[in-house]
Amino acid sequence: MENLDILITNGTILTMDPDGRVIENGSIAVQGDQIAAVGTSKDFQDVHVSRLIDARGGLIMPGLINTHTHAAMTCFRGLADDLPLMTWLNDHIFPAESKLDAHMVYSGTLLACAEMIRSGITCFCDMYLFEGAVADAAKTAAMRAVVGEVLYDFPSPNYGPIEAGFAYTEALIETWRGDPLITIAVEPHSPYLCSAELLKQAAAVSQKHGAPLVIHVSETQSEVQKSMAEKGRTPVGYLSDLGVLLPNLLACHCVALRDDDIFLLKKFDVKVAHNPESNMKLASGVAPVPDMIKEGVCVGLGTDGCASNNNLDILSEMDTAAKLHKVNLLDPTVMGAESVVHMATIQGARALGLEGITGSLETGKKADIIVIDMDKPHLVPMYSPYSHIVYAVKADDVATSIINGRVVMEDCRLLTLDIEAVMSDVNRISEKIRER
Amino acid sequence: MENLDILITNGTILTMDPDGRVIENGSIAVQGDQIAAVGTSKDFQDVHVSRLIDARGGLIMPGLINTHTHAAMTCFRGLADDLPLMTWLNDHIFPAESKLDAHMVYSGTLLACAEMIRSGITCFCDMYLFEGAVADAAKTAAMRAVVGEVLYDFPSPNYGPIEAGFAYTEALIETWRGDPLITIAVEPHSPYLCSAELLKQAAAVSQKHGAPLVIHVSETQSEVQKSMAEKGRTPVGYLSDLGVLLPNLLACHCVALRDDDIFLLKKFDVKVAHNPESNMKLASGVAPVPDMIKEGVCVGLGTDGCASNNNLDILSEMDTAAKLHKVNLLDPTVMGAESVVHMATIQGARALGLEGITGSLETGKKADIIVIDMDKPHLVPMYSPYSHIVYAVKADDVATSIINGRVVMEDCRLLTLDIEAVMSDVNRISEKIRER
Repeated sequence: MENLDILITNGTILTMDPDGRVIENGSIAVQGDQIAAVGTSKDFQDVHVSRLIDARGGLIMPGLINTHTHAAMTCFRGLADDLPLMTWLNDHIFPAESKLDAHMVYSGTLLACAEMIRSGITCFCDMYLFEGAVADAAKTAAMRAVVGEVLYDFPSPNYGPIEAGFAYTEALIETWRGDPLITIAVEPHSPYLCSAELLKQAAAVSQKHGAPLVIHVSETQSEVQKSMAEKGRTPVGYLSDLGVLLPNLLACHCVALRDDDIFLLKKFDVKVAHNPESNMKLASGVAPVPDMIKEGVCVGLGTDGCASNNNLDILSEMDTAAKLHKVNLLDPTVMGAESVVHMATIQGARALGLEGITGSLETGKKADIIVIDMDKPHLVPMYSPYSHIVYAVKADDVATSIINGRVVMEDCRLLTLDIEAVMSDVNRISEKIRER
Repeated sequence: MENLDILITNGTILTMDPDGRVIENGSIAVQGDQIAAVGTSKDFQDVHVSRLIDARGGLIMPGLINTHTHAAMTCFRGLADDLPLMTWLNDHIFPAESKLDAHMVYSGTLLACAEMIRSGITCFCDMYLFEGAVADAAKTAAMRAVVGEVLYDFPSPNYGPIEAGFAYTEALIETWRGDPLITIAVEPHSPYLCSAELLKQAAAVSQKHGAPLVIHVSETQSEVQKSMAEKGRTPVGYLSDLGVLLPNLLACHCVALRDDDIFLLKKFDVKVAHNPESNMKLASGVAPVPDMIKEGVCVGLGTDGCASNNNLDILSEMDTAAKLHKVNLLDPTVMGAESVVHMATIQGARALGLEGITGSLETGKKADIIVIDMDKPHLVPMYSPYSHIVYAVKADDVATSIINGRVVMEDCRLLTLDIEAVMSDVNRISEKIRER
């Protein structure tokens, strides 16, 4: 450890490791793509360092993990709000999406990556159309990503019929096999847009390739009511019957759950993505997250697409998650700050099957690290780092971000993207969308 | 209008005037402390201007109004969270407050002013101890403020017995009479900490001086239950019986209301301060704001103190308000973006009795104006300015702020405060608080 690539010094380290270590006056060393050591500043006095990053008394913590988004929906940010769900979808979002192409998805995802890096996200899980372009954009931005083409039983603007959707997915898996940043997932949209055959095939393909399986489940009460009426089962119960509840399944939303649904999620070690701001804005309801966590279900945090949010700011999502469950249960002790930070870091990594390489600051893990500048009026004074991260820190306070050992943002400057060009490109795309 | 003090050009103006005008490529002229004219850029081609502010395509709108806070609680930001209400108050907040003095309140309020200006707030309404120091701090920061000493029936660390509290309040009223920025209010804490005599005297003093009257009302269900058990009336009904429901009364929180309470608020033209994030974090409940607005009650928005939030960011509060009521009523059409912007601007001004001088951009009103930089990744593209302000704009996007014709922030630099000194001072105060 005599020659280090990067040394971050002079910060409070929230390791999020199994012991929950918080290290005052900490330093963390990066060699290649890995965390080489985590310690105090005096542990690194005699080392040679290629790049020294001074945290200036700020917080050093694992990069945040966005377990559910549709990144390219940046193109539709604020296109339509405050409408009934079906009006919003049928009159605004679906017509806009019918104009999508791979270039728009690429540009929209680059913009999403810029916004996500700026809010401390180092890894995201995406479901959308033209996901080959999403993988390319994430790679360009140098972000860690789990991406998968959305699969359903009607013709897709990208791949056409569903058989081609599976072929497209398996081709992506081959293309990106072994990539250090990109993981391809199999992503059937939902139990209500996918046949039983599609769902079973998706599960089989995911298991064949050891790929994550991602789906929307029980996002609204009406989805559950429809499922009960048509199938006599809740969406979770129905997936259980099909044998699709698997440890590599990430179930997004899980708002309208019954106690026996939670039991099934736990029994089969299914992971959950919680998207509080989207669930609020679309008036879907409040997911029973404190109950799920109590039962031992792994829950990560997500922003959802930014047509229903309208941003990709996981720090804001953390604040909202902490407060929403308190008011929903009329209990200020639920969803404490530390448990919310867990959701956004190590539990998020576990939700994506990536807990071996990211989600905490431990020697040997990949170097996905952010530095938060705490020298701001709205962060003074500081009594507790966990409290500040959840209730006070904002996206603009994230100063530096390292992903897989590469510095992608330093002093709030994005190093992997030409942000002016990306913004111009998405502005041009929005002109086309406006013309509809 | 040949020589202007300030001209802001090249922005989209949200006037929030009675016609709801939105002016593309707008300009706004400031002469002395007033708005001299509002128009398009071509209306101001031949004028001489002392200070030209280029909005660079951003948004120009009225300064935001924080109708309820305890500014100096910045000193306790994140001191204790996620606790039962009585543990939080009795074991953490009250012991910390017992150490307060005028210097701490002054410093804490300066820090609050810095944070508020940075999030676009130009006017706030405060209730706390040592409010003379709050008025001094607001004046130093050059913010518009309604301030009033909290009055209750036990000895105050500031004024001692309640008679001295009224004397202190009336002395403040005399000191600040005619001040262009500071308005002194009469502020009994709540129906549960104030006797009937205190409440009636407070109302009488407020009417004698034409001062605002500010009180906490029906913040929790348990407060209402206790009131019903002890007085046989809801807190609102009780205040009605006492003759304290007046048009100059600002009732803060109003979470636990019955339909007949809303009827009384409307009947007596009582104003309401809505504090969604504090109500969520303390698990108080959800105020029936859509119902109040439907009935014609004037509702402004507030942050509450930042021990229960933990910030003074009204933009975040706007986003939360829009989303919270949607999920609470399971209706995505309630609390639309435009109505939320009304709450944070002209309705907030009305709540404080200041609608004649602030809350909208109209010729002759005082110049309380903010400029929001829209050239940011998370604000691209823009389809609707109202949507963006509520769902996407963040505190750091506010670039420039003018209060009463004075530029208090330009390009995110605070011009009235030495922010490094203020932060150091509050950090020193936090050391004392930690020692308890």
